[in-house]
Amino acid sequence: MRIPLAAILALTFVATALCQRQPAPFYEDTNNIPVSPEVHADRRVTFRLYAPKASEVLLMGSPGILEAIKKPMPLERGDKGVWSLTVGPLDPGFYTYGYAIDGGLRMPDPSNPNLEQRRWGPTSLFVVPGESKAVFEERQVPHGTVHVSFYDSPNLKTQRSFYVYTPPGYEAGKRKYPVLYLLHGNGQIEASWTWTGRANVILDNLIADGKVKPMIVVMPYGHVGREIKTPASAPANPGADMASIEKELLTGVKPLVESKYRVLTDRNHRAIGGLSMGAAQSLQIGLHNLDQFAYIAAFSGGGNRAEWEKADASMLNRKLKVLWLGCGTEDFAYPGVKSMHDLLTSKDVKHVWNESGAGHSWPNWQVYLSKYAPLLFRD
Amino acid sequence: MRIPLAAILALTFVATALCQRQPAPFYEDTNNIPVSPEVHADRRVTFRLYAPKASEVLLMGSPGILEAIKKPMPLERGDKGVWSLTVGPLDPGFYTYGYAIDGGLRMPDPSNPNLEQRRWGPTSLFVVPGESKAVFEERQVPHGTVHVSFYDSPNLKTQRSFYVYTPPGYEAGKRKYPVLYLLHGNGQIEASWTWTGRANVILDNLIADGKVKPMIVVMPYGHVGREIKTPASAPANPGADMASIEKELLTGVKPLVESKYRVLTDRNHRAIGGLSMGAAQSLQIGLHNLDQFAYIAAFSGGGNRAEWEKADASMLNRKLKVLWLGCGTEDFAYPGVKSMHDLLTSKDVKHVWNESGAGHSWPNWQVYLSKYAPLLFRD
Repeated sequence: MRIPLAAILALTFVATALCQRQPAPFYEDTNNIPVSPEVHADRRVTFRLYAPKASEVLLMGSPGILEAIKKPMPLERGDKGVWSLTVGPLDPGFYTYGYAIDGGLRMPDPSNPNLEQRRWGPTSLFVVPGESKAVFEERQVPHGTVHVSFYDSPNLKTQRSFYVYTPPGYEAGKRKYPVLYLLHGNGQIEASWTWTGRANVILDNLIADGKVKPMIVVMPYGHVGREIKTPASAPANPGADMASIEKELLTGVKPLVESKYRVLTDRNHRAIGGLSMGAAQSLQIGLHNLDQFAYIAAFSGGGNRAEWEKADASMLNRKLKVLWLGCGTEDFAYPGVKSMHDLLTSKDVKHVWNESGAGHSWPNWQVYLSKYAPLLFRD
Repeated sequence: MRIPLAAILALTFVATALCQRQPAPFYEDTNNIPVSPEVHADRRVTFRLYAPKASEVLLMGSPGILEAIKKPMPLERGDKGVWSLTVGPLDPGFYTYGYAIDGGLRMPDPSNPNLEQRRWGPTSLFVVPGESKAVFEERQVPHGTVHVSFYDSPNLKTQRSFYVYTPPGYEAGKRKYPVLYLLHGNGQIEASWTWTGRANVILDNLIADGKVKPMIVVMPYGHVGREIKTPASAPANPGADMASIEKELLTGVKPLVESKYRVLTDRNHRAIGGLSMGAAQSLQIGLHNLDQFAYIAAFSGGGNRAEWEKADASMLNRKLKVLWLGCGTEDFAYPGVKSMHDLLTSKDVKHVWNESGAGHSWPNWQVYLSKYAPLLFRD
C-alpha cells in the first residue's frame, strides 16, 4: 500500500504538534492551568487555582506575604471551577505562598514554575519588581555558575551533594578564591540558597558593583537524612544530627571542595554563615574550629549559648575578623538571637548586630547575605 | 535586671530548638505531612495524603505508573484525615505520580522531596529498586558535576540558563571533550534531563563501566518563554518557536559552551538528541546544520517529514555517523516516529530504529539515552 504524501504530511504534522504540545497525562487539560500568579503593573497580584469541587481555597503566605496580607485570605469561586483573589498593591519584594484547600490540604501553585523545593512541602515563589532592582533581581551583569557536586559520604554512608557558586570568569582563569560556606535552614535543602534565596544572583550583583570580593560559595546539605522516614520530620536527637553535620562539613565536604575547586585554604580566606538551623550550625562549627574559620555569621538563629559563655573573649576577638548576628524583630527566633547578642556584648566580644524588621523569611536572609558578604576577605 | 543563667540557657535551648525544628508556617503542623511514598521491601508502595475534608483522592500516574496500576486509583480515607493506598508489587523502575482531589484539583505529593519540576504542573517521583541497579540508579562510582550556566540572551532579550554535565575528573584535567546537546520535551525545563531523567547518573554509570566515551552534555532550555502568560500554555506559533530555539542554540548557547567549557568544536565531536518536542527540535536543527552535527537522535518524537523527504539520502549517509530513532509502541507519538522510520528506510538512509514497549515516559527516555550515548564519538 502506498500512502499519499498529503496524508503522511498531515499525520506527521499532527504527531509533531502532539509531541510539542502534549503535557504529561497528569495535567492533561491545559485549561486546568490558569495563569497564576499574575503580577500587575500596579503591584497588585492575582492568584488563581482550578479546584472545581473545593468548598474553600485560602491563600497562605510564608512570613513575607503574611506581613502584606496579615492572615490567610479566601479566594473566590468563579466560573468553571477557577478560584481567584487579587491582593495588594504589595511592596516590591520576594514572596512565597501556597494554598490551603478545605481547611486541611496544603499545596503549591501548580501554575507557577518557580517552586521552593524543600525536604517536604514545596511552596511557590514570585517577585514584585520595584522601580530600582532589588539585590536578588537578575541584572545584565557577568554571571557566575552554580555547580552541583555529588559525592559518596563515608561518614553518612550515602550519596549527598553540595552546591557551589563560582564567580564570573572562574572557568577561564587560574587564580584561587576565598570561600564562604553558606548553610540552609530546617526543611530546606542544598539547593535552597540558590533556587530560593538567589544567592548566586546576589553575589553576581554585588561583585558587578565592586561591593564584594569575588568568592566561591559552598552550600552543603544540612540534614542527615532526606526523605521523611517517620511521621515526625524532626530528628530524634537534634544534637547528634548537629555533630554529624559538623563532621560531614569538615571531613566530607571541605576536602572535596579544596581538591575540586580553586579555593584558598587558610583560615583568613574561609568563612561560614547560615540561616535558622544553619545559623546554629555556623555558630557551633565556627566556634569549634576557630583555626579554620575567621568569619562567622548567624542569620535568624541562635547558637549553643553555654559554649559561647565559656569561650575566651580575647581569643574570640583575636581570631574572628567578623562575627555577624542578624534577626528580625517579628521573628520567633528573636529572643534567642538577641540573647546571644547581649551575651557577646556583656563579654565585650566584637560583633555586628543587625536588627531588622520582619520575620523568619527569605527577604531578611537575602538582605543579611548582602550585608555580610561585603565584610568578608577584606584583608 | 540580671537574668539567671539557667533561664537564659532554657530560653536559648528553646529558641535553638525552634530554629532547628520550625518549618515555614505554610506547613506548620508536621503531623499533616505523613510518610509518602513508602516503598516496601516487597516492592509494594504506599501513598498517603492529609486531606481531611476531601471527598475523593485519586492516585494519578504518568505513563510509567499507569502501566502498573492501569487507571487512576482511589485512596481510602483513614483516621485523622490521612488518605492512603498501597499498590503493587511494582516492577523495579522509575515512577512519576500525583494526586487528583475531588475530581479536579491536581497536585504533587507534599511529603515527597523528589519533584519533577516543569514549566507548570510539578509532579512527584520515586524509584522502586530491583535486585541489580538500573542505569539511572546511583552507584558508588566517580561522579561528574552538573553546572547551571546563566546568560543574557541577545536573541530572546531575557536571562536564560542551560545545564551542563561534565564527566568525573573534568575539574582536575586539561583535555577537551566531545559534546552532546540533549533537549527536553514540552512543559519540561533545562533541569529536566538531570533532576528528573538523571542523565548525569546514567552517564556516570556508563562511563564507569567503560561503555561510553567521557563527554560533556549540554541541556539548554527549549521553550521561548517561562511562565504561563496566557490560559493556553502552548505557543501561538510552534513553528516560530522552533526557529527561535534553533537560532538560540546555535548563536546563544553554543558559543558560550565553547568559550566556557573544554569542548571539541568539530562536527565529528558534536551530537544532538532530544525527547518529544526536543526530538522534533533535534531532527530539525541537526538536518539544517549537518556541517555542525555528526549525530542526531529523536526519542519519542518525529520531525518535519517534508524536509527529510527532500533531503539527499547519499549526503545524509555520508554526513551522519549515527541517526537514531526510538519510540514506544504505546506512545501517542508512535505513528509519527514510525512514519519517519519508514521514510528513512524507503530512502535507504542509514539509521537505528529502536522500537520499545511502553509509552511517552522517562523510563523509555532513560533507556534510549543509555543506548544512544554508547554509539557517540567512536571514531
